[in-house]
Amino acid sequence: MLWSPASGSDHAPLVLMAHSGGQHKRAPGILGRAHRFVTGCGFHVAAIDAPGHGDRPRTAADEQHIAVLRQAQAAGEPISPVIVRLHIDLAARAVLEWQATLNALQQLPEIGANGPVGFWGIMQGTGIGVPLTAVEPRITAAVFGCLGHESLTEAAAAITVPIEFLLQWDDEHVERQSGLALFDAFASTDKTLHANAGGHFEVLRFEAGSAAQFFARHLGRDAGA
Amino acid sequence: MLWSPASGSDHAPLVLMAHSGGQHKRAPGILGRAHRFVTGCGFHVAAIDAPGHGDRPRTAADEQHIAVLRQAQAAGEPISPVIVRLHIDLAARAVLEWQATLNALQQLPEIGANGPVGFWGIMQGTGIGVPLTAVEPRITAAVFGCLGHESLTEAAAAITVPIEFLLQWDDEHVERQSGLALFDAFASTDKTLHANAGGHFEVLRFEAGSAAQFFARHLGRDAGA
Repeated sequence: MLWSPASGSDHAPLVLMAHSGGQHKRAPGILGRAHRFVTGCGFHVAAIDAPGHGDRPRTAADEQHIAVLRQAQAAGEPISPVIVRLHIDLAARAVLEWQATLNALQQLPEIGANGPVGFWGIMQGTGIGVPLTAVEPRITAAVFGCLGHESLTEAAAAITVPIEFLLQWDDEHVERQSGLALFDAFASTDKTLHANAGGHFEVLRFEAGSAAQFFARHLGRDAGA
Repeated sequence: MLWSPASGSDHAPLVLMAHSGGQHKRAPGILGRAHRFVTGCGFHVAAIDAPGHGDRPRTAADEQHIAVLRQAQAAGEPISPVIVRLHIDLAARAVLEWQATLNALQQLPEIGANGPVGFWGIMQGTGIGVPLTAVEPRITAAVFGCLGHESLTEAAAAITVPIEFLLQWDDEHVERQSGLALFDAFASTDKTLHANAGGHFEVLRFEAGSAAQFFARHLGRDAGA
């Protein structure tokens, strides 16, 4: 999916949006924020389905991950170790897909090869986005969050671009100290943590406005705020 | 000091601003934010000198605190225990002064007795503001930060109004875990932590805009964001 402003979008900044686990490129959490970034900031926004998500067929490995995840949930076991393995497997495929997507997007005349690029993705979007941003110098600002440091510390330590990181203070799926450790691991000298009271699925709507302001500050267009 | 919008300020929300240690009611950190709250949000803003600060004479106790603080600094000792004792002593006087100030402000026809009231104060402003907000039901939203939980946990646990809390991730004077513990201690179900990379005196300018938006959300006027 590529959304662009109705006018004045030539060489506007581009924001890549990665959805959460079990979601897809047109999920409400993507659509609402994409709308805000496009109409409020004048950005291009692109979203793709993660491997095994949305319109994409599932591989045997995808089916296996889902089976293990459902088993852990049914047994009331912690799902965090399953999620960590799932994200590692997804990222191994999705990082290359995002780089190919970015190559294709930058061939479009209205985007071009030299415009600023941001990345937005929380939860599974962070599990894919941190390894991606660590190896992709075209991404110059990123919003991550709602995920812990397990398996991501090394990639985070390779990231130096400005970061806004969301954390749910009462997250029932992500240990608070693990989320704080991931924020701590980013090598970026310009990084901001937004921690809000509430559970894993209670990320507040006004953080979309904050993300828009963050991208406007760092990708170079005024968010009107 | 009372700053008000040039027009349309009748019964507008009121924000009380408490300065940091060694500062005063007209310090640049107060003036800049007050200007933003007044012109950007249409609020009234009031600031007073803390005991022994600004235009106010110092008591023997104030002089004693300063001497102990300078001694600790000269000896390269941790100043945190001195600051904790100083804040306790200041708050014992300043809470009553702020309540008297609020009584006087609410007698003014342009403010009135029923308008919403917010509190803004970081560092020493938090050392005074947390005990104040804990006992002052007229304050319905507060911005605090850059201070640890020592001696403030009990008062924080009595606060249930929305809180925005600033923390400097690399604060050389406030232990990170102590700041996180103070944020955790607030009983508020609506609370947001903004942690930014940087030292104690490097609080970022854009947080003033975030505070304006926070007060606009909770005191009932749009910040124009």
